[in-house]
Amino acid sequence: MISVAREEGKLDDIRAILGNDIAVKAYREGTLPFPEGAIIARIAWSYDASEENNKTFGQAQSFVAGAPKNGVQFMVKDSKKYAETGGWGYAHFNDGKPADSAFMQSCYPCHQKIESRDFVFTRYAP
Amino acid sequence: MISVAREEGKLDDIRAILGNDIAVKAYREGTLPFPEGAIIARIAWSYDASEENNKTFGQAQSFVAGAPKNGVQFMVKDSKKYAETGGWGYAHFNDGKPADSAFMQSCYPCHQKIESRDFVFTRYAP
Repeated sequence: MISVAREEGKLDDIRAILGNDIAVKAYREGTLPFPEGAIIARIAWSYDASEENNKTFGQAQSFVAGAPKNGVQFMVKDSKKYAETGGWGYAHFNDGKPADSAFMQSCYPCHQKIESRDFVFTRYAP
Repeated sequence: MISVAREEGKLDDIRAILGNDIAVKAYREGTLPFPEGAIIARIAWSYDASEENNKTFGQAQSFVAGAPKNGVQFMVKDSKKYAETGGWGYAHFNDGKPADSAFMQSCYPCHQKIESRDFVFTRYAP
């Protein structure tokens, strides 16, 4: 596991960012750019108040992961294959189906803004 | 990984709940009570607004995991060894040091309230 996060606004989810061994090792050692073969995954769920937890705590404070939401996303490092998008290939699946090409046009323009960290937004949670 | 969550109030953290293979398998198959040898871990971090993400999104919406917070906790299933606390042993570490026995008195009274799910609050995030 690389980190966890919460997005408000339209996304309105709670999420986990996972990596394969290559990605996690690079994160832990602070290696940039990420090595070939690094894979980063983002899964997300609806952000649900937990009434059963709140009842136990005696106050409203607990939010948990509900149903899967906002698809599953991957970044795959292959500098040759994905040279045009910073060396990363992007993937997005909704219920196991890949998103259409129009949707996929939106990945790189945003990730491009974080080129200084090899196009990866997520920082490692120690 | 079993799930992620956010606690407001005094805890004020974002957290991940992890399990060993025995625990994760039991979660996925809905097995209750958890089998002997199941281990569940809870790690947590400060819940920090991400200015760099917000800047990219063009609005305040992103919260990420900051520094580790509220210690690391474990539940270990051993029905014989921990018969007095529902078959689970509880552990809490702050900066690698086990919490004192006074602190540990607080675990079971709260988990006892969720006896119907074998004393485990966290539900599996699919």
